[in-house]
Amino acid sequence: MSDFPDRIEELIREISSLPGIGPKSAERISLCILSKNESEVEKFVNIIQKAKENMHLCPVCFNITDKERCNVCTDSKRNHSIICVVEEVRDLFAIEKGKYYDGVFHVLHGRIDPMNHISPENLKMKELVKRVSEEDVKEIIIATNPNFNGDITALYIQRLLKPYDIKITRIATGLPKGTEIDFVDSVTLSMAIKDRKEI
Amino acid sequence: MSDFPDRIEELIREISSLPGIGPKSAERISLCILSKNESEVEKFVNIIQKAKENMHLCPVCFNITDKERCNVCTDSKRNHSIICVVEEVRDLFAIEKGKYYDGVFHVLHGRIDPMNHISPENLKMKELVKRVSEEDVKEIIIATNPNFNGDITALYIQRLLKPYDIKITRIATGLPKGTEIDFVDSVTLSMAIKDRKEI
Repeated sequence: MSDFPDRIEELIREISSLPGIGPKSAERISLCILSKNESEVEKFVNIIQKAKENMHLCPVCFNITDKERCNVCTDSKRNHSIICVVEEVRDLFAIEKGKYYDGVFHVLHGRIDPMNHISPENLKMKELVKRVSEEDVKEIIIATNPNFNGDITALYIQRLLKPYDIKITRIATGLPKGTEIDFVDSVTLSMAIKDRKEI
Repeated sequence: MSDFPDRIEELIREISSLPGIGPKSAERISLCILSKNESEVEKFVNIIQKAKENMHLCPVCFNITDKERCNVCTDSKRNHSIICVVEEVRDLFAIEKGKYYDGVFHVLHGRIDPMNHISPENLKMKELVKRVSEEDVKEIIIATNPNFNGDITALYIQRLLKPYDIKITRIATGLPKGTEIDFVDSVTLSMAIKDRKEI
C-alpha cells in the first residue's frame, strides 16, 4: 500500500518537531500547507524568513528584538530597578500580556536541568550578575516555573545574588484563580495552605 | 507595555491559521522557529518549498502526487474496480495507513456544505461520474464523514450513481472499538443498535 511521497514525509517530520504538535496534527498541517497554491506557500515561507531576518537577542535582557535594544529595555516609563527573571522569551510575553508589570526583564534562555546536563554556565546567569552589580537594581523577581528545575534555578539565583544588597522575591505559588479546591493537586494545595496570607 | 514585534505578530497570525493550532500554540511554535539559527530556518523553509515543488493532484483520483499519476492509481496489484470516495487527501492516507484496503480512491476535495455555499459543482463529482461511466467499476465505497455534511454528500453520490449498474456502499457507523457504551453519545449508540448484525 502507498505511503506519503518522501518529500511530504520529510515535511511532516519537520512540522512534528515543533512544540505541541503530534504526528496526527503534523500530517493535517502539512496537507493544509500543500493544499495552498504556489503564491500562498511563497507568502507563508516569506513571513517565516522575514520574521527571522535581523531578529536577535537584546544585549541587555536577552528578549528577542529587531532593534538595537528591545522595546522593554528602551521604555523610559518602566521601572528599571526591578528585574523579573524568566526562563524563556515566551514567559516574558505571557507576563507582558497582562499589562500589570512595569519593571524590566532578564531572560535566562533555559533553566538548570541536571538530567539534561544544563548547568548555570549554559544560561544567561553571568549576565544577570553583571546587571545587578552595574545597574541600580532594587529588586529581583524570580519567575522561573514552579517545578523541580524552576525551583533549583530559583535557589541558585537566590544564592548567586546574596552578596548584593537587593530584595529577592519569587512569584507566588497557590491555587489558580477560578479553580475548585477538590480539583487541585495535593502539592499545590499544601503549598497554598503553607503560604496562606492574613486578610 | 510592549507587544511582540510586528513581524513576529504576523508569523503568529500565519501559524495560527493552520488547522488545530490555537493562539497559544502559535506563539510557542513561532518563538521556537525564531530560536532556531539562520541555517536551521533556511532548512525548514526549504523543506516546505521542496514538498510543494512539482506536487499536484493525480488526474485520475485527485490524490496529491509528485508523479504523473499517484502511487495508488499506478499500483497494478490493487483492485481498480473498487473506488473508495473520500472527502480529503488526509482521509485517503488515514485509510491507507491501515493497509487493509486494496481498492483505489477518489478524493472529492470537500463535502457538500450548504451553510458555506459548497455545492457538488465545487467538488470532484463530475470526475467521479466520468470514472464510473468509463472505467470498469464494480463498487463505490462512500467514506465521507459520519456527520450532517458527510451524510448529504453520501446521499448525493448515491443518487448521482443510481443510473449505473454498480454496488454502492457506505462505511459502517457504530461504536468505536475499545470504547465503553456509557461514554458513547446517544446518536452513535442508537445507530449502532439500528445497524446491529446477526452473529
